[in-house]
Amino acid sequence: MTRQRVRDVLHRVADGALDVPAALDALAFAPLESGDSTDFATIDHHRALRQGFPEVIYGAGKSAEQICDIATHIADRGDNVLVTRIAPDAADRLQSVLDGVVVNRVARTAFRPGNTPAPRGNGTVAIVTAGTSDLPVAEEAAVTLSALGDCTSRITDVGVAGIHRVLARRGDLTAASVVIVIAGMDGALASVVGGLVASPVIAVPTSVGYGSSFEGLAALLTMLNSCAAGVTVVNIDNGFGAAVAASRITHS
Amino acid sequence: MTRQRVRDVLHRVADGALDVPAALDALAFAPLESGDSTDFATIDHHRALRQGFPEVIYGAGKSAEQICDIATHIADRGDNVLVTRIAPDAADRLQSVLDGVVVNRVARTAFRPGNTPAPRGNGTVAIVTAGTSDLPVAEEAAVTLSALGDCTSRITDVGVAGIHRVLARRGDLTAASVVIVIAGMDGALASVVGGLVASPVIAVPTSVGYGSSFEGLAALLTMLNSCAAGVTVVNIDNGFGAAVAASRITHS
Amino acid sequence: MTRQRVRDVLHRVADGALDVPAALDALAFAPLESGDSTDFATIDHHRALRQGFPEVIYGAGKSAEQICDIATHIADRGDNVLVTRIAPDAADRLQSVLDGVVVNRVARTAFRPGNTPAPRGNGTVAIVTAGTSDLPVAEEAAVTLSALGDCTSRITDVGVAGIHRVLARRGDLTAASVVIVIAGMDGALASVVGGLVASPVIAVPTSVGYGSSFEGLAALLTMLNSCAAGVTVVNIDNGFGAAVAASRITHS
Amino acid sequence: MTRQRVRDVLHRVADGALDVPAALDALAFAPLESGDSTDFATIDHHRALRQGFPEVIYGAGKSAEQICDIATHIADRGDNVLVTRIAPDAADRLQSVLDGVVVNRVARTAFRPGNTPAPRGNGTVAIVTAGTSDLPVAEEAAVTLSALGDCTSRITDVGVAGIHRVLARRGDLTAASVVIVIAGMDGALASVVGGLVASPVIAVPTSVGYGSSFEGLAALLTMLNSCAAGVTVVNIDNGFGAAVAASRITHS
Amino acid sequence: MTRQRVRDVLHRVADGALDVPAALDALAFAPLESGDSTDFATIDHHRALRQGFPEVIYGAGKSAEQICDIATHIADRGDNVLVTRIAPDAADRLQSVLDGVVVNRVARTAFRPGNTPAPRGNGTVAIVTAGTSDLPVAEEAAVTLSALGDCTSRITDVGVAGIHRVLARRGDLTAASVVIVIAGMDGALASVVGGLVASPVIAVPTSVGYGSSFEGLAALLTMLNSCAAGVTVVNIDNGFGAAVAASRITHS
Amino acid sequence: MTRQRVRDVLHRVADGALDVPAALDALAFAPLESGDSTDFATIDHHRALRQGFPEVIYGAGKSAEQICDIATHIADRGDNVLVTRIAPDAADRLQSVLDGVVVNRVARTAFRPGNTPAPRGNGTVAIVTAGTSDLPVAEEAAVTLSALGDCTSRITDVGVAGIHRVLARRGDLTAASVVIVIAGMDGALASVVGGLVASPVIAVPTSVGYGSSFEGLAALLTMLNSCAAGVTVVNIDNGFGAAVAASRITHS
Amino acid sequence: MTRQRVRDVLHRVADGALDVPAALDALAFAPLESGDSTDFATIDHHRALRQGFPEVIYGAGKSAEQICDIATHIADRGDNVLVTRIAPDAADRLQSVLDGVVVNRVARTAFRPGNTPAPRGNGTVAIVTAGTSDLPVAEEAAVTLSALGDCTSRITDVGVAGIHRVLARRGDLTAASVVIVIAGMDGALASVVGGLVASPVIAVPTSVGYGSSFEGLAALLTMLNSCAAGVTVVNIDNGFGAAVAASRITHS
Amino acid sequence: MTRQRVRDVLHRVADGALDVPAALDALAFAPLESGDSTDFATIDHHRALRQGFPEVIYGAGKSAEQICDIATHIADRGDNVLVTRIAPDAADRLQSVLDGVVVNRVARTAFRPGNTPAPRGNGTVAIVTAGTSDLPVAEEAAVTLSALGDCTSRITDVGVAGIHRVLARRGDLTAASVVIVIAGMDGALASVVGGLVASPVIAVPTSVGYGSSFEGLAALLTMLNSCAAGVTVVNIDNGFGAAVAASRITHS
Repeated sequence: MTRQRVRDVLHRVADGALDVPAALDALAFAPLESGDSTDFATIDHHRALRQGFPEVIYGAGKSAEQICDIATHIADRGDNVLVTRIAPDAADRLQSVLDGVVVNRVARTAFRPGNTPAPRGNGTVAIVTAGTSDLPVAEEAAVTLSALGDCTSRITDVGVAGIHRVLARRGDLTAASVVIVIAGMDGALASVVGGLVASPVIAVPTSVGYGSSFEGLAALLTMLNSCAAGVTVVNIDNGFGAAVAASRITHS
Repeated sequence: MTRQRVRDVLHRVADGALDVPAALDALAFAPLESGDSTDFATIDHHRALRQGFPEVIYGAGKSAEQICDIATHIADRGDNVLVTRIAPDAADRLQSVLDGVVVNRVARTAFRPGNTPAPRGNGTVAIVTAGTSDLPVAEEAAVTLSALGDCTSRITDVGVAGIHRVLARRGDLTAASVVIVIAGMDGALASVVGGLVASPVIAVPTSVGYGSSFEGLAALLTMLNSCAAGVTVVNIDNGFGAAVAASRITHS
Repeated sequence: MTRQRVRDVLHRVADGALDVPAALDALAFAPLESGDSTDFATIDHHRALRQGFPEVIYGAGKSAEQICDIATHIADRGDNVLVTRIAPDAADRLQSVLDGVVVNRVARTAFRPGNTPAPRGNGTVAIVTAGTSDLPVAEEAAVTLSALGDCTSRITDVGVAGIHRVLARRGDLTAASVVIVIAGMDGALASVVGGLVASPVIAVPTSVGYGSSFEGLAALLTMLNSCAAGVTVVNIDNGFGAAVAASRITHS
Repeated sequence: MTRQRVRDVLHRVADGALDVPAALDALAFAPLESGDSTDFATIDHHRALRQGFPEVIYGAGKSAEQICDIATHIADRGDNVLVTRIAPDAADRLQSVLDGVVVNRVARTAFRPGNTPAPRGNGTVAIVTAGTSDLPVAEEAAVTLSALGDCTSRITDVGVAGIHRVLARRGDLTAASVVIVIAGMDGALASVVGGLVASPVIAVPTSVGYGSSFEGLAALLTMLNSCAAGVTVVNIDNGFGAAVAASRITHS
Repeated sequence: MTRQRVRDVLHRVADGALDVPAALDALAFAPLESGDSTDFATIDHHRALRQGFPEVIYGAGKSAEQICDIATHIADRGDNVLVTRIAPDAADRLQSVLDGVVVNRVARTAFRPGNTPAPRGNGTVAIVTAGTSDLPVAEEAAVTLSALGDCTSRITDVGVAGIHRVLARRGDLTAASVVIVIAGMDGALASVVGGLVASPVIAVPTSVGYGSSFEGLAALLTMLNSCAAGVTVVNIDNGFGAAVAASRITHS
Repeated sequence: MTRQRVRDVLHRVADGALDVPAALDALAFAPLESGDSTDFATIDHHRALRQGFPEVIYGAGKSAEQICDIATHIADRGDNVLVTRIAPDAADRLQSVLDGVVVNRVARTAFRPGNTPAPRGNGTVAIVTAGTSDLPVAEEAAVTLSALGDCTSRITDVGVAGIHRVLARRGDLTAASVVIVIAGMDGALASVVGGLVASPVIAVPTSVGYGSSFEGLAALLTMLNSCAAGVTVVNIDNGFGAAVAASRITHS
Repeated sequence: MTRQRVRDVLHRVADGALDVPAALDALAFAPLESGDSTDFATIDHHRALRQGFPEVIYGAGKSAEQICDIATHIADRGDNVLVTRIAPDAADRLQSVLDGVVVNRVARTAFRPGNTPAPRGNGTVAIVTAGTSDLPVAEEAAVTLSALGDCTSRITDVGVAGIHRVLARRGDLTAASVVIVIAGMDGALASVVGGLVASPVIAVPTSVGYGSSFEGLAALLTMLNSCAAGVTVVNIDNGFGAAVAASRITHS
Repeated sequence: MTRQRVRDVLHRVADGALDVPAALDALAFAPLESGDSTDFATIDHHRALRQGFPEVIYGAGKSAEQICDIATHIADRGDNVLVTRIAPDAADRLQSVLDGVVVNRVARTAFRPGNTPAPRGNGTVAIVTAGTSDLPVAEEAAVTLSALGDCTSRITDVGVAGIHRVLARRGDLTAASVVIVIAGMDGALASVVGGLVASPVIAVPTSVGYGSSFEGLAALLTMLNSCAAGVTVVNIDNGFGAAVAASRITHS
């Protein structure tokens, strides 16, 4: 598309419809037209074209006003609006200024579908959690995957201290095209699942735990050092990132 | 027992009482029957059979609703209910939905005995603390040990800066079958106690201290590097884990 | 397959061809038959069945003798032999005891193809490096991918300090079905590539750098915190792990 | 100036206008005359003479009373008053006791111009941010630069995940005499900008991010390890420090 | 015993056989008689009385001369001599000065039995390793346990990436009175084993791994955060410490 | 004194006034008589005899009730009561239950003099601070030194960024018998002062600063690595510890 | 220049001298013409145009062969060849294949001037070191600055433990247009110098020191937390980076 | 003395014996006369006047030539020459160029007394070590103390795992005017000694240990968090620094 756009500009230059200085500016500034930028944000409307999903608003550290402004800009284009880590009051405010926003309080997300549904991903993404306390991260992943056009299955509370629990769900695991493993504390579930399935495994360490879990560092290191080859890892508590990584696979 | 269960299934197959597909499923899914699972938790009722103690609910990061639901499932089976790191309001709510729950505010625990008392452990577990600020961890250990069927003795506030304090209690220390040493700051008490007794010593670093104690890291490293051979260590502030480790010894 | 094996055992029990105690043992010990184990290693011959690739020998910390023994066991079965992080003298020795071993000194690998070629993966895996010093990790990934049946393309020395270098290769990047980004120092290349392509991106931090790179920690943290959504990360210098992760995707 | 002051003292001794003991004291205590010191602060009025900017009040950890007292001392001299990291209530109080104080709530600064405007710096300082959440740090830098006599330009929300955003602003970047790059999460923007411009680049890591960003440590390490040569770094979230560093350059 | 010694002194005072100053010194210096001290070491001959095992010589950082001197002192008393982390040349030298020393090159130990065999411990200590590279630590544990009078069983190379390997050895695991789990990389084996058995589990992280294993830190944190309750941990690579901890249990 | 006590017991045994079993108990339990212990604290009344200062109550992590109980026990003996890190409400409560308690809100201390004033220390202890934000730590040190019988002088706000400020106070520095240097941020003041004076220098890092000060870690490391030889360091924010260290010197 | 190149392409399209597909490719691939790339390196010849200095070869982790190949490519263009962190044998080899290479063994650099001397920077860059052990880093900075066209002055061994040493050189410090401060251990010199001069100060922490200097981490943190405002920092031991940063200032 | 020097200059100005410019220079450059500086070192001959001990040469990172040059300069003045962390070959070379140099291979020191013996310190400094492996640090402290004019006593191998060993030496401990405690691993000895004596206690963590001792970090943190109040700490393995700190006390 960007390549197409450049081609168009070149054709118009070849046709004499555009002079050189104007073409120069068109090429230099093409990706960011006026109107796409607020005072504090430069919205990347072309991301959907490059990557298959539009810009997502990371709600932490943004005021409710900023979130609403950016979301309105995106919604006006007809794109999906997805906000993660949104505070309850910002979510309320967003619902009051924009119709059709669905808020998930556990996931801390707000979602409003765009004009065109996301293309469907191949197969199912399994979301596996070690314990009940990992649910908010799992919910964030599930909401994101749904927004990206993916089907999900859930395998909950199958930590390795009762190894039969995860073995009992082996069928569901092997049926998935991608597996997201979410675990805090020792993070050992990623290694076990990584050894059970042949499909891609994305591990999400969570900040669940105390003391020397150091806010998820222990689980992060466990997962990076997984003795099951080919397990990849995203940031602590980053259910959103794991979902996008999975969706990159199911849409490729 | 699990072995017995498999043997039973095999006998029923040999007898023609069970056909092969049903046997296959019985073997695969045996440990987790329907009904044992809530929407967000897969309860491990067989843990008591494998390990001598039932599943314990780690209260941190769970809502009061989730705790009450899981606790009710376990109580309905007649098992012990033990919740650790329970918030005051969740404890209140649990007491309102379930009879006979005893809450220890210092230990942050809620306990409700099951139908069958836990088998008694051998001997006494001594719980030794370096300072008054270590009490919540000591209480968590004491409540857990009591739930697991162990007798405890308490040796309180015997930090090594006044070495005669711990030496004066040497008799109580050597009388114990297992010693749990709980200390923050420099964590040095574990080494001294480890050198005084021949019995197993389990060290619990606490997050008591400031500055370069780094929330218990200093005490943790001290204990892992104890010059008294054979001292073992659990996570920072993990009175529950130390109690279970001690109970594994007294019940073996 | 394992499921099939259990079914076979059950049928033989139903037919009376196998008594219960023998069946019990068969089920319990099925995955690890005698003969598959050396004195110091329990070889996992079934891994290929579970995961599409056989067990790989991690050479670091193993003696030349141990490597040769395990490799011979695997080769005798007709499986692929892949050794990573092999020391030069161990590689020489392996070549002397086993025919057809190909050693890559830069990658620190030894490879000997098995009787059956690996199934081909879908598409091409692009291996992108930020600098010349990242080559050993890239080579390890390339050798591993080749052993797993994958085609690779190489995009070399395109660090972000000269951003036009990576932009110039955008065509090659978007043509790949999976992109492995290998970078030390600031590790920033992963974020730039992650923003350029829609396909899965696997980032490998390397220990290239000095001072506060802390042996790759800086690049690792950069990649885990990538502002390009959906980038996943493997351990520092882990070219092998990235290759297996990519191959899980191309074979799914 | 200090050199001049010593010369004056020496001339007065040579002239007999000052005896030796008085001269001795004058030389020893010259920089800190009585009256410049409050009970809890020793104000460095000579800093403007040494360094081109007067002492700035770091508001964190100081009570509103302390801030007001120090600010009044400085204002009475006719110097610029600049307070950073000022709490809202301290800012209100300062405005109530001192006329002409301008408070910037996003930047957490209070500023009151002195009798003499700051000398103008050469050229423009570009302040570049990766995301909306980096704004408070950018504002602190902008307020400080304005107080120091510098012109600023703003390039906002041009994180490297959409690399065209920063490339589109290349003209503004190369037009600046100094570039301040402010980024959290992966901090990769500093390397890209450092490769695009020949002018001095000062990188400010921010504590924006979560999990393994470790409160800005990830971005800090990224920037210290920038593969673009000659990028320098200030402390996490230290917009003030970056501004002073830039102003040292534009005033040299 | 020490109590008996004090009683003896008191009786001799009561009998007038000892005057008060001599008694005072006897009580103060009793534990360390002259002759037990070399120039650089104060040997603790009473440890066996207090703790059931004599002082062990930690070889790292000691010269061959120092090791031989201390060992000779201990051997002259008829006690067990056990040296850990002994360098090859120091081991050779020790064998040349003392008869009957058995050196284990993998374990880096030297052992010479004393006049009286160690009292036998109860049951068997299982030593479980995740990979071949963990063998030196396992050997150190095995040599130490043998010196302390314990029987051992070995379960080798059963890392969790092939979970059936450890499940296949469940019988051996449950038969042990204490289980020592030795693992590097992700250290996840400790959690799985901790969930399978009811007996005491002592986890030993090893420095096996690379990159973000940080010389065993990853495995250490995994084990401290084990989701299997009651797993205790010793220092990285500390096979000796795990063995002493196990022996404290089997002898209690 | 303890030596004297043992001598007394021995004389009474020699005189027949005490039989052996009673003497044995007297010796073993001498340091901790009944009555000195509350339910949760074992008070070390003998500390003053051993060390010249009585036990001090560390208020953090103790309830107001616990503090009041321990303080009352100590006060009843006529000893000094010093509480550090006391919360405002606990301080209020302590004042309501015990007469003559002086509370310092900046220092977070409560002090009540005992029957006998502390012996005076030699000379003056200079307390030097780098910035206004270091005052609470300086106050804690000052209150403690006063309780221990030491005279103090104050040198305030002389950070090294204006090196003339500390040079101007060189006379006061060299007049002190011990110098306590309190600094956050870069902690560099300790090195400069350490090079200016020949007397003992005790450095206290403070948690003042932000970002990569990591709550005082930066200043702590600076001080431990001081290029001025012979500077010693105490824990972050530990004004109390620095005061006791200084008092050990002035009373020796 | 790049802008000019695009303008040329556009004019040729407007003139019909270039068709659209060829123009498209010309624009996309302009920055990296064929011939500039070796098998393992993509040389950035345009860097001099963008940034005023050509690509520098970082010698660590590159073989002598790789260094010689890249250097020859650069020299063939007539550009400056500068290699940093070059091993002695690689330096020898480079001298044997390329005329006019000057090797500095302390700085670990090799330099060969290009056809055109570098443009001169404004003023003098002062290189200040705290101790003799910091010399290799200072030499690397000096060689780099000379290659970049800058004059340097040296102020050596003026650590803050003898504060008069640096004060005595205040004249030289204030005469410089940029000051590079190189210090290990406590790194405090940067703060003192930062407070003495108004010009830009670039701090280089060195890995000189032991124990808790943690290979330069202590000095790095000190410098990042400098209480002298506007001090910027580069990576540990990065004399090259500091030199480029200084040269960016003197050439702006 | 410096004060005296300034007074002299002022008197000569008052007398007309010195004109103002010459006086100005005399005052500015007084502390560092020409001739005191080599090419790479600025020797601080006045340190003895300020601090009671002359400059000490830190041998690590300096070449044998540099050490010999600096040592010769100092010796020519008649001052003590003390080199620490000197490599064996540098020590040999120093002995060949300078008469009367005494080398201690364990301490890694070289010492040559100056013309005037150091003034004697008050009392005795006790050097206490936890284990034999701590000897090199203890030797470095002992050599330094001797050079500074202090008497030392030695208490060796009294680690807290055998607490009676240190209690048995209580008399020697209380007899010392300063106690240096040297310990690696858990570093707990400092807390016990700190609780036994009233005199100043200086703790030196050593890098003895393995695994999570992290090269002495564990012992360092233990000592900084000592529950015995008033223990101060120096850098890891810094026997020299502890000796200077002790000597500051004994000479004050």
